[in-house]
This record gives sequence, structure tokens and C-alpha cells, in this order.
Amino acid sequence: MTDTDKAYAIIMAGGSGTRFWPLSRRDRPKQFLSLGPDARSLLRATAERVWDLIPPERTFVVTSELLREQVEKELPELEADRILAEPVGRNTAPCIGWAATHVKRLDPDAVMTVLPADHYIGDTEAYVDTLRRGLQAATHGDYVTIGIRPTRAETGYGYIEVGSELDPGVFRARRFVEKPNRQRAEQFVASGCFLWNSGMFVFLASRILEAIDKHLPGLGEQLQRYDEAARAGDEASVVAETYAELPAVSIDHGIMEKIGSVSVVPGSFDWSDLGSWTSAWELSSRDERDNVLPEGGIGVDASGNYAWAPEGKLVALIGVEDLVVVDSGDALLVVPRERAQDVREIVAALRERGDQQK
Amino acid sequence: MTDTDKAYAIIMAGGSGTRFWPLSRRDRPKQFLSLGPDARSLLRATAERVWDLIPPERTFVVTSELLREQVEKELPELEADRILAEPVGRNTAPCIGWAATHVKRLDPDAVMTVLPADHYIGDTEAYVDTLRRGLQAATHGDYVTIGIRPTRAETGYGYIEVGSELDPGVFRARRFVEKPNRQRAEQFVASGCFLWNSGMFVFLASRILEAIDKHLPGLGEQLQRYDEAARAGDEASVVAETYAELPAVSIDHGIMEKIGSVSVVPGSFDWSDLGSWTSAWELSSRDERDNVLPEGGIGVDASGNYAWAPEGKLVALIGVEDLVVVDSGDALLVVPRERAQDVREIVAALRERGDQQK
Repeated sequence: MTDTDKAYAIIMAGGSGTRFWPLSRRDRPKQFLSLGPDARSLLRATAERVWDLIPPERTFVVTSELLREQVEKELPELEADRILAEPVGRNTAPCIGWAATHVKRLDPDAVMTVLPADHYIGDTEAYVDTLRRGLQAATHGDYVTIGIRPTRAETGYGYIEVGSELDPGVFRARRFVEKPNRQRAEQFVASGCFLWNSGMFVFLASRILEAIDKHLPGLGEQLQRYDEAARAGDEASVVAETYAELPAVSIDHGIMEKIGSVSVVPGSFDWSDLGSWTSAWELSSRDERDNVLPEGGIGVDASGNYAWAPEGKLVALIGVEDLVVVDSGDALLVVPRERAQDVREIVAALRERGDQQK
Repeated sequence: MTDTDKAYAIIMAGGSGTRFWPLSRRDRPKQFLSLGPDARSLLRATAERVWDLIPPERTFVVTSELLREQVEKELPELEADRILAEPVGRNTAPCIGWAATHVKRLDPDAVMTVLPADHYIGDTEAYVDTLRRGLQAATHGDYVTIGIRPTRAETGYGYIEVGSELDPGVFRARRFVEKPNRQRAEQFVASGCFLWNSGMFVFLASRILEAIDKHLPGLGEQLQRYDEAARAGDEASVVAETYAELPAVSIDHGIMEKIGSVSVVPGSFDWSDLGSWTSAWELSSRDERDNVLPEGGIGVDASGNYAWAPEGKLVALIGVEDLVVVDSGDALLVVPRERAQDVREIVAALRERGDQQK
């Protein structure tokens, strides 16, 4: 067994996703929403899941200044110094690197699991088992990515090709593949050799910092400076001044794909990155006509619809099919389920006309 | 010219229509809404239109006890005794008969024009001209109905067949025809001899009471009692006790269709009985893709939609066609335009489950 006293959880909760507009907003993004069957926010659910393995004292949340207070409210178990607020989002490599400096200062041998705050996970037990296996492999020095066994030829996810088995349940990751077209996705799934790239990683804090030094040396130098400033009690001002200068690079492209040998631990649990309202519909419990309606909602000759409205509001759908109808109180969206991705166009249009709050 | 000092207007505003649910409610029915291009409520618009011809002092509004206060607010020009509140709705014959007793007491020679409070009229000048012609004919003793020159083969309206000309612009009404099917409606319109039955009438107060005595003698007796009670200063309690016993009969079926010789005055103005959300869409000004959207609303690949939402609420429609989307604040309806009539099913279902307010 891994010594989980050395295990830290890093929850990435800085996203400002627009795909769940109008429910998700700049100041209340997706990770604070309850989507799918769970009444908890996605962030709260993510934290409670990982706390089965790693306690709050060893959990960091990286978020933005705008969202810090909401994170504190959602996760009162966390001490203030466990919440790292980025002055500005710079994608995942700086976020993870910065968290790694904090973790390594607390324990030079620490192993850390990095988890997006806004995904759906259906089976906590299988998930925790997978993380435990990942932590074990990472303790040996592996750069571990968590792959999800695909259940359909999804074209909305990246894939990981699985190579030889290194240890029981731990494999070499042969390559990362961008979102495929339908045909390739079907081949991937049929082959049995591909996993969905979940965006969850496990590695020693020291090892990921080494990799950053090697592959993103500019970022590595800055992180070195943050570490020194932190030891001198002056981290906040240095971060505030310089964070915007960090390269906006993802951990996937900036590090994992450049590392020669990455390990992958396959997980067999229901998982979704909740990329659009369509996935919320897929994950919610539906009535006999495949509708998801708020409590008290009425459907007449209506099927395949997803409706969301503030508590107490009556929603009535007559003769409509496969629609997403979302009432956030101050805004109302109606879009066919298959076009749910297009809400980003609305958000872009609103930002263009200066309607930032919407 | 008719002596319009003898003309009274009776506005029927007791309806509790359900076709504009969720905007229309039991306690805020259609006549209090602004539908179509006019910002005024339908009731207010009806009153202001007729006041071009007949002043508020000679205007009565018949409504229900539930709605009396709202009528007072909408029409502060009216003295309290010009608002007749029915304890319970009994269709149009009792409503008009009761109003006629009031009018006749004020002036035994009075002529009255009876107007629904919840219709759309596009051209006030043409409308007032038509009413004036109707008042003139009614002064001679005619039972006058106002017919609208049809502009399409509408199957949602009743029709009146026009006979010989009695006076300039006044014709014999040969017969009343119920809502026809498509084929008959087309024949009616092609023939040029049919008008839409608008539900507006003009007659001497004394003449309509005579007709009631003849064709609905039970109602006639009760109205006689109301008149006597009113003269004795005791009308309110007699009405409260007995109104529910009056026969619920329409003026069309109960009287007009039974009278041998009815006159019809054709009107050539835009008119709609606003029978459903579809008519609101038809009458509203639409954007280049035939959408009716609230201020600030956004349509992306959306056409032919009618959307209504509380002021300040952002409505975004993506990739949807020919929908009615109505947000009343506490309820939300989505229905294809062509099924807009079916909102009655929702209202029936809500009343069944005891949700009277919705």
C-alpha cells in the first residue's frame, strides 16, 4: 500500500466555463452548479469524493480571486492557506506548478493528484480505487494520467492509447490523441486499446516541477521565485505582480505529451466532463418520455427535453422534442439539445455588447 | 347624424380566458394584458377607443367581483357606479341584459354598443366610423351586429352572411354561421357575402330588454326584479343572491340568432379576437426572421418564434423555429406556435391538481 500520508489533492476550480450559460456565469461558473443527479455542487462533490482518500488538511484548491469566497463557502473544511487564488487564469500548467511548490514545501516527498473540479463521476468507490493505484505508481516516480474506459465512440473527448502493462493496473501511455472524428472514435473503442483522457493526473510534486523546469523553463524559473518569496513570507505580492506573465499552457500539451514515458491507470467508472447541457441531460434521471423536468413540471406530448428553472417555478412543455430550456432567473435559453454547444455564441455576443454579467 | 348624447358603451370585461396562460391567470385575465403592438392593456385600449365617440360618463364596464379593483385601476375615469361586478359569470346575455337595465334607467331612449374588452382593433378611426353607423341604425330600432370584412379564410371565427342593403352601409344579416371548416371558410371569403362575427353589437337598451323578455323570459323576469331593486336602492343584495341562478346563455345564441331581422354593419379594419398566442405573434411587429423577442433578446438561427419575458430578462433562442416561449415570472411555457391552443390542457391539469393560482 501507498503511504497516503504523503498524498495531496489539488482541485482545479478556476474555470469560467460558458457552456452552461445562462446558469453558469463569470461569477458563478460550472463548478459551483449542481448538474446531473447529484444535489451537491460539482466542486463540493469532487472534494468529498477525494476526501475518502486524502483529508482536507492535504487538499489544495486552485481558483481565481473572483471565486475565492465562493470556494471558502463551498468548502469550509479548508484552511485559508489551502486555497490558492490565481490573479488571472493561465491554463493548467502554471496552476499545477504553483500548487506543486506549495505541496513540496510541506513535504519534499509528497505525491499529488490533480483533479478538475467540474467533472461528473458516477462511482466513488471505483474512482478512489483508481486514484489509489495512481498514487502508488506516482510514488515510484511515474507521471500518471487517469484514463477512462470508453463506453461509446465519443468525439468530444481526447483519447490515450494504452501500451504494455508496467505494474498490475498500470500501463504505458503510448500516445495522446486529440478529439477524433466519428470513424476514428469508433475504431478506438473497437480496438479496446484506447481510453478517454480524463484530465486527472498523479505525480510527485518534485517530479512535476522537474518536468516543468525541463519543458517549460521560463515557467520553472518563475515558480522557483514564488517558492523563494513564499519562504520569505512575501509570496502574495510577487504572485500578484507576475502571474499574468506566466505562459498560458495546458499540462497536457506543455508537459505530459513531451515526457517520454507517461503511465496511465485505467478507471472503469461513469465519467463525464460535462461539456454541455446535453451531458447534463444524459446524466440526469429522466421520466418515461426521456424528459428532465424541474419538480412539478408538466410535459404534454413532450419528449427528450431538459428543463431547468428556479425552485418553485412551473415549467410546462407542450409538443416539443429534444430541447434544452434553461431559466436562470435573469435569463432564459431555448436551444435544441444537439446544438447546446452553441450557447458559447450567445456568451460571446453578450460579452461583445458589454453585458458581462450575463 | 345620430344624437350620440343618447349613446352608451358597455365594455364586457368579465372573461377569465385561459388561452394566454401563463401570462393570463384567473386573477389577471387577458383583458388586463398588453398583447400585440399596443403597450396599453386590451381593456384600456378598448375604453380609450370608444371614448372617441362616447364619454366615460356614459361607459359601463361589466366585470367580476374578483376583477373589480383592477378595472378601477385601469380605468380611473369611471365613477364607481359605472362598474358592474357580476358575482359570477353567466355568459353574455345576462351581462348585457343587466347593463341594459342600468342604461335604460338613466335614459329610456338610450342606444348601447356592447364591446368585448379583450379584442385587438387596428384602426381606431375606421372602427369609430363603424360604431357610429351602428348607433345610427340602432337608433331606428335595429338589432345591429358589427361584422368584419374577412382578410383570410379563418376557421377560428364565426361568420355572418350579408343580405340586402337596408341603409347606406347597413345590411340585413341573413344568417349566423358557426366556425366553418377550411373549405367552407374559403368559399365564404371568395363569395364576398360573408363577414366575421366580431361579437360587437348595438341596440336600444329598451329593444334588447324586449328581446330578452321574448326569447329568454326567465332572464327577463329577473332583470325586471333587478331594476325594481335598483330603484328601491337595494340592487346589490338582490344581485348577490340571485345572479348565479341566471341562465348562462350567450347573446348570440340566446337572442341574436332568434331575432327574425338582425342588421349588420360591416367594418373594414384590422381585427382579431386574440384567441391564442399565435394571434399575438401575428399582430406583433416581428424582426427580419419573423421573431417576436423581448427587448434585448437574442436569436441565433431562430425564426418564427414568439417570446415573452418579464422586463429586463434576457431571452436567447438558438436554432428553434415557430415556438411560443412565455415566461410569466412564476411559470414558463414552451409550445409550438401551431399548438398554442393546447395551453388550455395545462390550465385544466393545474386546476385539477388544485393549483388554482397557476
